[in-house]
Parts: sequence; structure tokens; C-alpha cells
Amino acid sequence: MIDQSVADVMRASVRTVTEETTASAVARLFADEHIGSAVVVNPATGDPIGIVTESDIMRQVAIGADVSTVPVGSFMTSPVITVTSTESIHTAASLMKDNSIRRLPVVDAGDLVGIVTTTDLTHYLPRLRNTILRTRNDLVGH
Amino acid sequence: MIDQSVADVMRASVRTVTEETTASAVARLFADEHIGSAVVVNPATGDPIGIVTESDIMRQVAIGADVSTVPVGSFMTSPVITVTSTESIHTAASLMKDNSIRRLPVVDAGDLVGIVTTTDLTHYLPRLRNTILRTRNDLVGH
Repeated sequence: MIDQSVADVMRASVRTVTEETTASAVARLFADEHIGSAVVVNPATGDPIGIVTESDIMRQVAIGADVSTVPVGSFMTSPVITVTSTESIHTAASLMKDNSIRRLPVVDAGDLVGIVTTTDLTHYLPRLRNTILRTRNDLVGH
Repeated sequence: MIDQSVADVMRASVRTVTEETTASAVARLFADEHIGSAVVVNPATGDPIGIVTESDIMRQVAIGADVSTVPVGSFMTSPVITVTSTESIHTAASLMKDNSIRRLPVVDAGDLVGIVTTTDLTHYLPRLRNTILRTRNDLVGH
């Protein structure tokens, strides 16, 4: 339980866009779906080639880009750092910290199967605390 | 240690804006400072009256608002949910989960003293895991 895997906390529904998607279309997707990132895929193969986040859109707004025309391909982060679904949540947390990122696409054998975010990991914190207390009580009980 | 407080993980430097700040000025602040939110304060008193996040700016872009003129006061979240610095990180995590939010301004006796985010709590996860393992070892050792 303390080494719970990424599969246990990830969201299996992950939104994808292509390099041609415009910044404003991505902003609408984020607002409509209440999400903060989308994985950029090759439309022919479905392979993940990058990621676009709220912060990337923010930067386009900040520099005064025409968000209705600027394509994701010109400002996405590529290549993208990913994890596999069998990694522990602590490995995912360390990867996020070490790379100063908040979202990790989950890729198993080349296939995009989900995404895990700092929000997902935070939601797990109260459960982790209960695990500590239970572990302590169990061990003291013996 | 397992009930570490918000003061231990929060960022003490928190950016503030006023209701009159425009969406594009906020986007520039976020991009320049690599942050995802700012607390909206009353310029006369310094009291926190709301919060503006990347998602809020995203929604303005999504609806085609003129980001160079639309003021924060028209789309900020107000009132804002806050914590005190002496609360445990698990209380903060639960507050975020229950309210579907990612950032909590830290307010002590009416004064804004910091901000804690899902990112800060995620960075704490690997340390929490070590605590569990140490707790287990300590107890088994007795």
C-alpha cells in the first residue's frame, strides 16, 4: 500500500491534440473539460510526441500571440517525460520534482494509457497518512 | 513529522494583484514568475479578497474575451478558501480535494503569509514515504 502504483491514482481518460491544434482551441478544451494539459499525438500513429499545458498557453497570452491561429506544435514541450503505469507514486512524485513539472503522461509499451498530475497525488496524501497511522498501530499491536 | 504543518511546505513569497489588474497582465506575471495563481487583495488594506488562477485566465481565452482589458475583478474566485500556517498538510490536502482546488492562500490572523499548492504537497510525498519506512523500522526495532 505505501508503494501504490501510478495505475492506482492516474486518470485513464487523457485528452489528446495534434501539432496543428490552435492555442485558443486548446484553451476551450481545458476550460470545457476542467483539465490543465493535453498530450500532443501524431495523428497517424497515436504516438505521444509532446505535451501542452495551461502554463504554455499562458506564455502565448503573455507575449501577445494571436491565440486563434498559433499552433500547439510551435510551443509545446517535446519530447515529453512519461512514466509507466507500474511505477510507484513516489517515483512519479520524484520525477515531477526533479523536472519541475506537474503532469506525467502514462505510457505502457508505447501506448498512452493515462495521465497523472500533482492534483492526483495530493488527493492521495490523506490516505497515505492513514496508512502511516495504521502501520504504526499494527506494529505496536504486535 | 507525519503531521507536518502548512508552514513547513508553503511558499512564503506570494504574488498579489488587485481587482483592476487585467487578464493579460496576470498572464505575464504567471509566465515571468513561473507561478499559476495570484491572490487578489484590497490595495488599501492588503486583505485577501479573492484568487485568480491559470484556469481562470484560460476560461477568458476560451470565451474570446479581450484579455488586454478584462479586469481580474470580473472573473476571480471570491471569497477565497484559505488555511492557517499551523494546519497540518493533510488538512490542506483534504481541503483541496473537497473543494476541487489546487492552491490555498495561507492566512494567519488576517495577514496573507504564503501559499500552498498541490505541487508543494507532491514534493513532500517522497519524504513522507521515507517517514513511513523509518516509522516501521523504528517500531520493529523495539
